[in-house]
Amino acid sequence: MNDEGFGPGNLPYGVDDEGHVLVAWRDEVLDLVHAEGLDVGRDVWASGSLNAFFDLGPAAWATTRSQLRAVAARQPARARRRRAGVRLVRPFDVGDVADFYASREHATNMATMLRPGQDPLPEAWLHLPIGYHGRAGTVIVSGCDVARPAGVLRAGEVGPTSRLDVEVEIGFVVGTTVPRGRSVSAAEADRHIFGVVLVNDWSARDIQSFEYRPLGPFLGKSFATSVSPWVVPLAALDPWRVPGPRQDPAPVGYLRQPEPRGLDVRLRLEVNGTPLSTVSSAGLYWSAAQQLAHLTANGAGVRAGDLFASGTISGAERGSEGSLMELTGNGAQPVVLADGSRRSWVADGDTVTIRGWCEPRGGAPGLSLGEVSSTVVPCGGEVLCR
Amino acid sequence: MNDEGFGPGNLPYGVDDEGHVLVAWRDEVLDLVHAEGLDVGRDVWASGSLNAFFDLGPAAWATTRSQLRAVAARQPARARRRRAGVRLVRPFDVGDVADFYASREHATNMATMLRPGQDPLPEAWLHLPIGYHGRAGTVIVSGCDVARPAGVLRAGEVGPTSRLDVEVEIGFVVGTTVPRGRSVSAAEADRHIFGVVLVNDWSARDIQSFEYRPLGPFLGKSFATSVSPWVVPLAALDPWRVPGPRQDPAPVGYLRQPEPRGLDVRLRLEVNGTPLSTVSSAGLYWSAAQQLAHLTANGAGVRAGDLFASGTISGAERGSEGSLMELTGNGAQPVVLADGSRRSWVADGDTVTIRGWCEPRGGAPGLSLGEVSSTVVPCGGEVLCR
Repeated sequence: MNDEGFGPGNLPYGVDDEGHVLVAWRDEVLDLVHAEGLDVGRDVWASGSLNAFFDLGPAAWATTRSQLRAVAARQPARARRRRAGVRLVRPFDVGDVADFYASREHATNMATMLRPGQDPLPEAWLHLPIGYHGRAGTVIVSGCDVARPAGVLRAGEVGPTSRLDVEVEIGFVVGTTVPRGRSVSAAEADRHIFGVVLVNDWSARDIQSFEYRPLGPFLGKSFATSVSPWVVPLAALDPWRVPGPRQDPAPVGYLRQPEPRGLDVRLRLEVNGTPLSTVSSAGLYWSAAQQLAHLTANGAGVRAGDLFASGTISGAERGSEGSLMELTGNGAQPVVLADGSRRSWVADGDTVTIRGWCEPRGGAPGLSLGEVSSTVVPCGGEVLCR
Repeated sequence: MNDEGFGPGNLPYGVDDEGHVLVAWRDEVLDLVHAEGLDVGRDVWASGSLNAFFDLGPAAWATTRSQLRAVAARQPARARRRRAGVRLVRPFDVGDVADFYASREHATNMATMLRPGQDPLPEAWLHLPIGYHGRAGTVIVSGCDVARPAGVLRAGEVGPTSRLDVEVEIGFVVGTTVPRGRSVSAAEADRHIFGVVLVNDWSARDIQSFEYRPLGPFLGKSFATSVSPWVVPLAALDPWRVPGPRQDPAPVGYLRQPEPRGLDVRLRLEVNGTPLSTVSSAGLYWSAAQQLAHLTANGAGVRAGDLFASGTISGAERGSEGSLMELTGNGAQPVVLADGSRRSWVADGDTVTIRGWCEPRGGAPGLSLGEVSSTVVPCGGEVLCR
């Protein structure tokens, strides 16, 4: 991770436990309720979530970002606090959640393990970004515990999952509503995205495997989706736009997007501090804008505060797999942690962390997307946000 | 339909376009903001949705219901309006949406058409209520138009669906939150349900068929889910509790529920006024309480305002199919409307209505669940709420 963290090129937004909107600024936070030099009023910054700011629209986001760059370094003491020790909550009210399956390497890995002998990609995979809806009520912020879920593991057998897994993903937060009955093309969808978070899409592989035909993942994934507390504005990531993988067949009309459509964000998966894999979101076959265009293609629209995520990001090389299922060959080859213990799946007490950052590029210093980290407590245990 | 409509045994709740909570009372509505004799305060009744009332909990719901029965007939003029002409909005803020697949006859019909030669039921079907998450942002109230959705119909082909369908369902509105990390068993889940609505789960069969492997329905269903405007309290339906179909194998622990677990609500599907089918929810294999228990079994919890629906309800006899796909044999045998026109699928301009009621039973007069009705406008057309 070669980045300057939360510097002037970054300026991500979060919300503290008093409902104040904050901006991360080097080792400090700026409390925008007390900040000077911003046009947007304090009612927006004290509203308990970013949604009121989303509703002001892209022009206000750009103005605020520009003003923050100018005034971040000279805020009064009452607007500044050390970042360590600030309690961050989930920074936006989540409307709907969609999760895609946009990494070709991940989709191929899963098909090879789950449906051996069949086509490595589902029929529609190259023609549209396959996805499903998740559960908004269980989107939790980094620092909140995850209890091992119970469920029906196979016919007649109920119990705690023995195959608890994680999925390394990047998530996109919708800032501008697309009304019901309207749609946006991939060429214009980016303007509806406010920013980016890191996502851990927790998965119970045994529950998922038994339940998913024919309606897809349900309880195997609905128990928890962890997100990072700092929403990095999409504008901050402009230096990391890169060409996406070649798409063949060419996408249908609404999915066509001019290059560069990719985004080179690095993601690292750690269990109890041991790095297990590193991958870049640049390899995603379907871009964020293509995912968002797809969500609206049928007139469903999206609302400010909706979250959509890439699905697990895996690369082609060993050490770039975005889930334990892929890293361990469906549990057969456990990974070894720094303390010598082995894991086929996540154990009770484990802390799983995904870190995200961008490497220096084209004159831009690197930046940090922070981390999303959760600890697993035993089935039925109390879940706290720390 | 042999029922007394909205009489003293019913007392369903709705919300008008001024954000006032109403109760349907015979041919009138009672505006609870102006009603007399209720303990619950006017701030709750003027809050724009039923969610504030949900938050007061089951004791307040019971007290209010009891008070309404006593005072409904003697409200002052300013609390009473003719029901015709009242503009009703979606009566609750929807959190998460889940849709089940709880009718054995429907699941069997679909499997026979879509996966001929394979098992008529998916592997897990008899062991748990299979379901998926839907889109809360497109839950619309009766009277709102549905625009024909476009999508990828098959590889490389984009356009308006040519196989627009409907699904006759019953929906359940969660009134009492189950916190994340907790679960409720089927034996105790009913107390978390506030009431019942009629649901039309619009479906584009070509979009759905192309996209659904392996993650389930997505854009084929996300464009619209219509609900009836009157939420009938679960308490009003006590006389229509009936034994459910025998369950073999016996359900696992958290899905066990004492009889009578079924609910005998009649549902009739009409297109442009022509009745096409009639079915009872009494035949559902998995009950509402079993569905809700399943939703929480993994610790996901539910929130007040969450909506879960049964999935299409079909019976075993001809004329009890809950979708056009089933009524027409996947489009092969069109139905004939009263004007002589034929339909394999829904046409632009069609008005699709589902009516719900309970027949007189055990001394209780019948009651009405009202209707959910939407008109289809052409792809890209403006969607209005009438």
